[in-house]
Amino acid sequence: MQKFITFEGGEGSGKSTLIKNLANYFDENGVDYIATREPGGLDVCEKIREIVKYSKEELTPQTELLLFSASRAQLTHDVILPALKNGKVVICDRYFDSTRVYQGYCANIADEVVMNITNFATNGLVPDVTFFLDIDPQFAFERKGGKDKGDRIENKDFSYHQNVRKSFKLLAQIDKRFVVLDATKSEKDLLNQVVLVLKNKKII
Amino acid sequence: MQKFITFEGGEGSGKSTLIKNLANYFDENGVDYIATREPGGLDVCEKIREIVKYSKEELTPQTELLLFSASRAQLTHDVILPALKNGKVVICDRYFDSTRVYQGYCANIADEVVMNITNFATNGLVPDVTFFLDIDPQFAFERKGGKDKGDRIENKDFSYHQNVRKSFKLLAQIDKRFVVLDATKSEKDLLNQVVLVLKNKKII
Repeated sequence: MQKFITFEGGEGSGKSTLIKNLANYFDENGVDYIATREPGGLDVCEKIREIVKYSKEELTPQTELLLFSASRAQLTHDVILPALKNGKVVICDRYFDSTRVYQGYCANIADEVVMNITNFATNGLVPDVTFFLDIDPQFAFERKGGKDKGDRIENKDFSYHQNVRKSFKLLAQIDKRFVVLDATKSEKDLLNQVVLVLKNKKII
Repeated sequence: MQKFITFEGGEGSGKSTLIKNLANYFDENGVDYIATREPGGLDVCEKIREIVKYSKEELTPQTELLLFSASRAQLTHDVILPALKNGKVVICDRYFDSTRVYQGYCANIADEVVMNITNFATNGLVPDVTFFLDIDPQFAFERKGGKDKGDRIENKDFSYHQNVRKSFKLLAQIDKRFVVLDATKSEKDLLNQVVLVLKNKKII
């Protein structure tokens, strides 16, 4: 059985913390896993990430979508699929649902078009469960201490981030693979909820 | 009327020389044009080109296709479409037919799949005429003085380059947009032939 878990959510929703806590739980409980995120240690993905964040031109949504898909194609081929094949649980911090939201819904590229290119990039790989960390963007921003990290996506205004949230919620409504988490809950509560879902789905 | 001219062909087929000669002809005859090639002076395309040529990992054909398409999306949006809109003749050294051949036919990705992603990247833009410089790869190699330029594609063996040639010829057979040029002809003969075609098609 394939064991592929992804985490999605807006900026400051707490994905990294929750993944770190889940990884600790896996370590303590002898679960064989890898935790990855784009760029995932790959040179090509690292360089693509730099292009998307810092290129001199304003990238079109099409260019961004193709770059993210290129990165995902290589990460899927080199890292995710081999780990899954070896029976490991794979945790991924963002996967194609982020592209569906940021380049799809929020940049007016139809979801069907995004998914055609995504399926080409990932060879049709779909997560077994996707946790969406739902939080009000204003609250997330204040929780972070009101500081920007300075890249393009994070610097967009709150209406954009509200649209991101709305789009993730829409995806979560139409796809049973999603589990929506209230990201204002405590770290402990969130970890417990994730572990419970993974046990119920027999992923761990 | 849109005036978009592309040149295609294997390594050492003489595309750069012919384009340079055509540009000189346009200069002398007052034709308003731009000559471009990926990366075309764009920072993002330059960086994508570096990734494809020098990344540490062996890129999958899918990753390569998506990277080339990303580069083409930005070049088309920022450079080619604005010039065409201004009534200029646009000369492009390689365009999507190279992807159809190198990542499509030669890497076993179906042409329909390549064209779906290409149409997404280029917003459906198709050249008005495509000149294919046909030459035996062995002859082209010897004409260059038998030296490699050291990047990945050029270092592949001759059977690969034979396959590239065969694939371009196949494309040229099935698409009336192509004009096949005998790349062993003199620079002057090639230029004359190209100018004649462009005049017949009322591009100049």
